[in-house]
Amino acid sequence: MTYRNPIQYCRACGASVAYRLPDDGDTRQRAVCPACGTVHYENPLNVVGTVPALPDGRVLLCKRNIEPRRGKWTLPAGFMELDETTSEGAARETDEEAGAQIEMGPLFSLLNVRGVGQVHLFYRATLLSDRFNPGTETIEARLFTEEEVPWDEIAFRTVRETLVRYFADRKTGAMGMHCIDIE
Amino acid sequence: MTYRNPIQYCRACGASVAYRLPDDGDTRQRAVCPACGTVHYENPLNVVGTVPALPDGRVLLCKRNIEPRRGKWTLPAGFMELDETTSEGAARETDEEAGAQIEMGPLFSLLNVRGVGQVHLFYRATLLSDRFNPGTETIEARLFTEEEVPWDEIAFRTVRETLVRYFADRKTGAMGMHCIDIE
Repeated sequence: MTYRNPIQYCRACGASVAYRLPDDGDTRQRAVCPACGTVHYENPLNVVGTVPALPDGRVLLCKRNIEPRRGKWTLPAGFMELDETTSEGAARETDEEAGAQIEMGPLFSLLNVRGVGQVHLFYRATLLSDRFNPGTETIEARLFTEEEVPWDEIAFRTVRETLVRYFADRKTGAMGMHCIDIE
Repeated sequence: MTYRNPIQYCRACGASVAYRLPDDGDTRQRAVCPACGTVHYENPLNVVGTVPALPDGRVLLCKRNIEPRRGKWTLPAGFMELDETTSEGAARETDEEAGAQIEMGPLFSLLNVRGVGQVHLFYRATLLSDRFNPGTETIEARLFTEEEVPWDEIAFRTVRETLVRYFADRKTGAMGMHCIDIE
């Protein structure tokens, strides 16, 4: 995955844009419309999700039914939408991808993935049931102990790093909040 | 401030777009291009900044020289860019708006501002000098004790909420990490 494709046309008037320094003192090249003057900014996206776990420490993972990484295992997560908070988005994704009943917990990890312009945020969540009803984006939703986790089949590095810290913190009994940069 | 204007034209081919449910099972209206099929997603933006403080607890605020809220006081912060992490963006803004020498600290607050589609992230930062060199976006950069802070002249609610928690945590001696939703 890389950045989105460059902007070719102005979203406001449809004219061809050119990447250049805007006239307002901005020091970065932006897609600027020569017809109507609109400056188009491109910024990182947030991905929000949960670490849904039973009180015994087993964690819910979802086998992806969509690209990228179809067939690999992930925590429920997806792009944050405009009309929600980070934790509301995390709850929505947990419902959509796993159909899991949860009680939302505190923020657990913030992972910068600079190379693709993303920030991933995972919240702890307590599973209220071990019955799941995954949506069409998920092949299978299943509980795993640390030993059972398919570590070689994890879809994303942000999910792996979050899971590693979750199981480590459970052992110490002190659940932290982890900030991680992934190059 | 509200959401950005609706998308009128396709950034990939320049055709007029229409807001509708995409054909991929998505449950939200998106700007979809009838000519090339591109689906245009609109997502929240991150604003990143710091709470720059001297060891004695005085905090650096900047008097804004730009709209919105020109003439009001703020912590150094701005929109996160594509080629940086959240803390790198916070450091960049601190340099641009205050010209302050800092040692970056841990994440201190995450504030959801759902009404405008923004997530604000503030990091603690230790000031290494009490000399500042603010850029053109700032009228004045100055240190304030809690009692000196111009509470009625703070530019943004996210800045106020962050400052309130900063001074409160300093009193208890336990600096936390705060997640706050602002309606």
